[in-house]
Amino acid sequence: MEENIEMVGKSFVDHFYHLFDNDRASLSSLYQPTSMLTFEGQKIQGVEDISAKLRQLPFDQSRHQISTIDSQPCSSTGGIVIFVSGSLQLPGEEHLLRFSQMFHLVPTLQGSFYVLNDIFRLNYG
Amino acid sequence: MEENIEMVGKSFVDHFYHLFDNDRASLSSLYQPTSMLTFEGQKIQGVEDISAKLRQLPFDQSRHQISTIDSQPCSSTGGIVIFVSGSLQLPGEEHLLRFSQMFHLVPTLQGSFYVLNDIFRLNYG
Repeated sequence: MEENIEMVGKSFVDHFYHLFDNDRASLSSLYQPTSMLTFEGQKIQGVEDISAKLRQLPFDQSRHQISTIDSQPCSSTGGIVIFVSGSLQLPGEEHLLRFSQMFHLVPTLQGSFYVLNDIFRLNYG
Repeated sequence: MEENIEMVGKSFVDHFYHLFDNDRASLSSLYQPTSMLTFEGQKIQGVEDISAKLRQLPFDQSRHQISTIDSQPCSSTGGIVIFVSGSLQLPGEEHLLRFSQMFHLVPTLQGSFYVLNDIFRLNYG
């Protein structure tokens, strides 16, 4: 079980940042109407507004490098919380931006997961 | 409701780090047998082992300064997820240690909250 949670967490994280870096519009498949995103303090709710926010970020290309992934089960919901740290390279930027992000995944009726809670912060040094 | 979540998140964060810095042993009141802590990648479960880990950290005094608090409700559980960034000063250390920490709070039968999920990471520059 423990090991399974780690695998689900890592699979989700790999999938999420792969989509983010290669096909950002398709991230909308991971959210639902009840989903929430807090992006650098800005609160956004629902799959449509979250998708719009992600599409409108002021860069076309990105490359995420993941440093750590910590996953835990939420016994009350069958969900998973995932805490990620890593760095983000943007086009034309020499420096990497360090970030931390947390996800709360909740099971869908179809046996998959969706993102209920998503909080993103850049780490300032 | 939105505003209330922010207030609960801020109150919890103030309370948590006040206890951490002033009476670390009493942090045990915030955890239950199902609680999980991942501390710099080390996984610990249950109020007793979590309390022991926190008591045994290799410093007697600490001072946390909070930079950001982002809180969201978890519609499925009545819980709250809280994402914190800040810095930590240890005795005899000139430099501040930057950290990020997330909490998933779940309601108790008594109308309060306990920490179900707690993940802590230092941010390396």
